[in-house]
Amino acid sequence: MKHIHLLGATGSIGEQTLDVIGKHPEEFKLDSLSFGRNINKALPQINKFQPSLISVQEKETADLLKEKLNYRAEVVWGEEGLLEIAEAGSEKDILVNAVMGSVGLAPTLAAMQAGKDIAIANKETLVTAGHLVTKLQQEKSVSLIPVDSEHSAIFQCLHGSKKEVKKLILTASGGSFRDKTREELKGVTVQEALNHPNWSMGAKITIDSATMMNKGLEVIEAHWLFDIPYESLDVLLHKESIVHSMVEYIDGSVLAHLGTPDMRVPIQYALTQPSRLAIPGAPGLKLWEVGTLHFSKMDYKRYKALQLAIEAGKQGGSLPAVLNAANEQAVAMFLADKIHFLDIEAFVERALHEHVPVSSPELEEIMEIDRKTRSSVATYIR
Amino acid sequence: MKHIHLLGATGSIGEQTLDVIGKHPEEFKLDSLSFGRNINKALPQINKFQPSLISVQEKETADLLKEKLNYRAEVVWGEEGLLEIAEAGSEKDILVNAVMGSVGLAPTLAAMQAGKDIAIANKETLVTAGHLVTKLQQEKSVSLIPVDSEHSAIFQCLHGSKKEVKKLILTASGGSFRDKTREELKGVTVQEALNHPNWSMGAKITIDSATMMNKGLEVIEAHWLFDIPYESLDVLLHKESIVHSMVEYIDGSVLAHLGTPDMRVPIQYALTQPSRLAIPGAPGLKLWEVGTLHFSKMDYKRYKALQLAIEAGKQGGSLPAVLNAANEQAVAMFLADKIHFLDIEAFVERALHEHVPVSSPELEEIMEIDRKTRSSVATYIR
Repeated sequence: MKHIHLLGATGSIGEQTLDVIGKHPEEFKLDSLSFGRNINKALPQINKFQPSLISVQEKETADLLKEKLNYRAEVVWGEEGLLEIAEAGSEKDILVNAVMGSVGLAPTLAAMQAGKDIAIANKETLVTAGHLVTKLQQEKSVSLIPVDSEHSAIFQCLHGSKKEVKKLILTASGGSFRDKTREELKGVTVQEALNHPNWSMGAKITIDSATMMNKGLEVIEAHWLFDIPYESLDVLLHKESIVHSMVEYIDGSVLAHLGTPDMRVPIQYALTQPSRLAIPGAPGLKLWEVGTLHFSKMDYKRYKALQLAIEAGKQGGSLPAVLNAANEQAVAMFLADKIHFLDIEAFVERALHEHVPVSSPELEEIMEIDRKTRSSVATYIR
Repeated sequence: MKHIHLLGATGSIGEQTLDVIGKHPEEFKLDSLSFGRNINKALPQINKFQPSLISVQEKETADLLKEKLNYRAEVVWGEEGLLEIAEAGSEKDILVNAVMGSVGLAPTLAAMQAGKDIAIANKETLVTAGHLVTKLQQEKSVSLIPVDSEHSAIFQCLHGSKKEVKKLILTASGGSFRDKTREELKGVTVQEALNHPNWSMGAKITIDSATMMNKGLEVIEAHWLFDIPYESLDVLLHKESIVHSMVEYIDGSVLAHLGTPDMRVPIQYALTQPSRLAIPGAPGLKLWEVGTLHFSKMDYKRYKALQLAIEAGKQGGSLPAVLNAANEQAVAMFLADKIHFLDIEAFVERALHEHVPVSSPELEEIMEIDRKTRSSVATYIR
């Protein structure tokens, strides 16, 4: 029986994590969870799984929740609450970090400190603090298991060893605007941007897919997760999203992970690895029905955000934190219809340009840089 | 340093094995080799690698070879000669069995008995005597390592464990006549049949690709190599031959092995596994240049030989030996322009139909069934 702690229970990954846990009650026990404010969505799940510890964003939600629980549980709130979850339970429990944004960073470090393995769906953790996370991972001998479909694909192809790897090849669908030129991108709307061809995901990540920033963040994550230099990381356009990613070895062999676009597969694998469980009711990949898979070279001019991300990753230090914060702020502004689609990458570029890099920032510095970058980018609107 | 013994040095796989050995003299030492009659092709290689033991098909070739060697070596001949190679050297040496036909069976068993690991390119060994070979493999704790690109692909995807496998999926290019209907197959010539779209191979295996008997033999091999029931073995048409085969797991994950059509990759992997070596000068897979991969369902009516093979495999006993012998004889007759292309499968079917099955034949019985089947099929010409 594996004991699970879930940060971000009402998001897309959080919901699907609960689905996986619920389908295998003999394998998993949900000990704690966090969510933000969406009590209507969280309550039925909480009453079903009955975790002994729950954390929410604000005190008001905590008070309201306590009244509505059909069992006894400890309810905490705020950033302190997330840290309580990180430290709850025992060593070798699994913390699934599925919160959005930089708020996910501190609890990850705290959970590793407490000896937990981390199933990591929170991009910011590795993007902004890869150097801190991987150092602590080695010190505490805990596992860092990817939940993203691309990283899970590579993790599965590697089978725990990155010996004799020549390249890691991340596939990218191209997002909602893959058939548009840069010229055509100028006038696109939020609604159009939210219409991803393959995956049903949250708004922020769907926009990041359209700008290709998502793939840029994934390249930085892959660098840290697999301890691979940027020169050995490639991105390949593959519009069907059936090949989730690949590993090329020195002998020319390429191992690839294929599947239907079903996030429950990488989520569940993160909880069961290196074993696997069946996923009841999952349709399975029928390649003869898909029929055709397409691959083409990445166009780094067309997708400038990807180029910015890789450059920030290569330079390292505080730059990926700036990249990430600027992007989050700019995407929020785009989603609020305050800026144009192409402003997102322009704002990120400007923030990177204005930032004075710090070479190996500590957690507090990263959080400070995150806050400052967001404030600055918010002022970029004229 | 690994010590290699190579049966079938002048065939396509044998030549490429020598290429691999020659490129990594610090890794491999060729201790012995066999070839048939092609002394002009073999001699330069023999004088280059200077194996201490050489076996040829007939005494005349042995006598001639002795005169032409530029160093001292033992030269033996006939089936006894192959057995001498099988027993030469030490335990944990690798025997690469790349001979064509049922003559490969006895030396494989002898080499396993002597404690050698087997890199198996000889299809007949597992097809006709899978039950004997896998029994001996367990008794002697030796490895049976596939050289075929399809089986090597599966072997690499499995990483030594067949836990939680749902299906093994062998890909098939469809061979030289994949765009022809059965009606159009009636009049095809030997020259047309020898024109394989993707792989450059020997004549027999190229014809077997066109009839799809090759894939049928591979399904039987996969059954024995990976201890997988026929119900869990699928064949998928994939005309580009880039995806060499796949493993589908119970959670819906599919791991695939991709690469250019270069037999040196699986040959070398069989010698280095679980490690890998670079292949100097190999171009590597550029998926963006390939651009598109196609997959479609296998048509078992169109490719009747595949259906016959799977059926013989499922029934087991002596039937796969009959299938194989009948096919070898019929292909030889087709290559000699004595029968039509579609007669191959008709003759195989008739041979299977006329045979009285033996449930668990010993080596001598298998050899006898092989001889008898060939004689019978030779008389099928009216």
